[in-house]
This record gives sequence, structure tokens and C-alpha cells, in this order.
Amino acid sequence: MKLVIGDKNYSSWSMRPWVMMKHAAIPFDEVLVPLREPDTQARIREYAPSGKVPCLVTDDGQSIWETLAILETLAERYPQYEIWPRDAAARAHARAISSEMHAGFAQLRENMSMNVRAQRAGKGATPGTLADIARIDSIWSECLARYGGPFLFGQAFCAADAMYAPVVSRFITYAPALSDAARGYVERVSAVPAVREWFDAARSETHRLAELDDDA
Amino acid sequence: MKLVIGDKNYSSWSMRPWVMMKHAAIPFDEVLVPLREPDTQARIREYAPSGKVPCLVTDDGQSIWETLAILETLAERYPQYEIWPRDAAARAHARAISSEMHAGFAQLRENMSMNVRAQRAGKGATPGTLADIARIDSIWSECLARYGGPFLFGQAFCAADAMYAPVVSRFITYAPALSDAARGYVERVSAVPAVREWFDAARSETHRLAELDDDA
Repeated sequence: MKLVIGDKNYSSWSMRPWVMMKHAAIPFDEVLVPLREPDTQARIREYAPSGKVPCLVTDDGQSIWETLAILETLAERYPQYEIWPRDAAARAHARAISSEMHAGFAQLRENMSMNVRAQRAGKGATPGTLADIARIDSIWSECLARYGGPFLFGQAFCAADAMYAPVVSRFITYAPALSDAARGYVERVSAVPAVREWFDAARSETHRLAELDDDA
Repeated sequence: MKLVIGDKNYSSWSMRPWVMMKHAAIPFDEVLVPLREPDTQARIREYAPSGKVPCLVTDDGQSIWETLAILETLAERYPQYEIWPRDAAARAHARAISSEMHAGFAQLRENMSMNVRAQRAGKGATPGTLADIARIDSIWSECLARYGGPFLFGQAFCAADAMYAPVVSRFITYAPALSDAARGYVERVSAVPAVREWFDAARSETHRLAELDDDA
């Protein structure tokens, strides 16, 4: 299998399935397409008809684009890993918050774009962004209280944690005020080996996007 | 089970799980919350912590919000219905285009908002909207060619068709240029009894949102 991704420093969507697959030890080859270059679109479209990363390419050549579709497909094909929680009610809850991440939090994504290397404490904190952060804090806090932590649905780092992993990166970069529960979760996700591996790789990348790095 | 929805004339998100459940003959009670009223947010939050419709409430009281999470949960709980295609590769494809709809096509959603009652041929056709429409036409045409129609993944009207049903409504209202394949698909989806039932109910609603109906 191949996973087509963008720059690790910037591509929050790419991070989600990559971290899940690394964490579950599902073998794959990484195809990294540097973003915003003249040939970026053409290179991505070799795999993904949507023109977006990430895209999973199976061994029999099927392209599966869109993060949630990739995670659902992995969960079906690798039932031995706890990609979704085993309990049906917890699984429905995990899907709800994962979909909410998938289509929501537009202000956070706009004003606190992922940039693993950067330190921007206090920047981007518009009212809409703070409202998104408050909702995320509430989602995390409720899950941690209900399922007991250390991750959103208990002992296993699952697809819902992978969906929020780039938010963890943003919270480190932009350092908004968070509840104690959310702050503890940020620390624990940052210490997951697959997440650390992504962060380390992002910091060592040499490809830079000037418009996203000018204040970094 | 209860399904919490907004006005049928306007709430494209509500239409998706409603049509799927009606089509599959899954019994449910409908809780319709008129949108943009002073108590709308409070009424939705009785069920959905995200403050958004749709929200499925199971018989044991669990709230499942977000359209994709509702559809995945229904597919798990009612395996006797073909909510996703039976074939694994087709299912992965169906999830990819459903997720693409879930998080994408922002220009279409902005400029051609759903309004079942309205006739607005030619309006809203900005370049970005036309690009979204071209991508949707390409998604539909490819599916219809590959799986043979009459629906996106063959004989059964599945969750992917439900995801695009509000786009069918928009294409009727705004009448953009479409390929023959896409135009035929619009006609066939419009004739599905569950879709007709939604459209008929939308037309008979008396609750109106002035800002969305002023040119209708």
C-alpha cells in the first residue's frame, strides 16, 4: 500500500491516516508530494481524482481519497487493530466527533494553520477561532471523563485521536488557553511514538512555503 | 429512534439521513426544529451537543450527530439494508465520494443553497461554483459508467446517493449545465419515493426564512 501525503510540516490532513497507520503498524510506502509547487496538482492527480491529499493506494491499485474514507477502509481491512472503539456506542460517538472535525472548525483551520516548526503563541485567536477551540476542549473533556483516558476513547489511541492529532500540533504552536483535561491530552498525544515521528520529520523538512512561514 | 432535523425546504444536511432511513424503511420519529428562530439553538442542543442538525437519537438515548456518523451507524445496525455497497472496493469508493461531499464543495453550498421550493435557473453560477459542479458531474459520470447505474453504485440507492440528494435538489433549482449522464441521474434520484416525499413536504412547509426566500 501507498499513502500519498503533503509536507509533514503543513499537511494536517495527511497527518491523520499516516499517524493511525504508523501507530497500528500497518505497513505502507509513503509518497510525499511537496505542496504548492508547479507540478503539485499533476502529481497528486496521478493518484487522487479529487486533487487532494491524503490518498491511499491499495496493493490492487484502488485509490481511496478522503481521510474518513481511508480510516473506515483501514478499520474494515484490519479488524485486529482497534482503529475504532470496540464498543458500538463508543464507536458511534467516535465517528460523530471525527466527522465534526472532518467538516468543521473552519475558523481554527483558517487562523491557526498547522505549522509544526513554528512558535506563534497568542496569534490567530479570533473570536470564531476561540469558539472552535472551546468546542474542541468540550469534546475532549467529555470523552476523557466518560471513557477514562488516557486517550479519547480509553486505553487505545484510535481514529478519533488521529483525527484530532493535528489540532494537538496547533495547540502547541498557538498555545491557546485550555482546560487542564485538554492540556493533559495534548501532552499525552504528543508523546505517542507515531506522533513524535511525524513531528520530528516535519522539523527536519527543508521544503518551505514562504507564505506560511514568514513569521515562524 | 428519533431523527432531529431542520426545515425540509432548507436543511440539506437533514435530508441525507432522512431520505436514507425512509428509503430503507427504518422506522423513526421525526423531530423538526424550524431553523433561525430564537429558540432554535436551544432546541437542537437538547439532542446534539454540536448544536447542529441532523442528530439521531437511539432508543437507549444516545445522540449521534454528524451525517456521516449517522449513516455509518445505520449501516452497522441494519446490515440487512444495502446502506453501503456490498462489494468492499465499491464501498471504499462510496465512502470517498461521500466524504468529499461532506467536507467539500463550499462554493456550491454557499452560492446555490438548497431551497426546494425556489426556481433560480442561472443564479449563483460563480466560477468556483461551476468548478464544484464540474467535479460533481465527473464523480457521478464515473460511478454511473463503472457500476452501470441507475444509481451511483448500481441498482441500490445507497448512502452515497443520499449524500448527493440535496445536490440533485440544487441542480433542479439552479439548473446549471450538466452532462447527459448527470442529467439522467438527477431525474432518477428525483423519482425515488423517499426523495419525492421530502420534496413534497418541503413545498408544503409554511415556515419561511426571508433571507433565503426573497427571490424565490
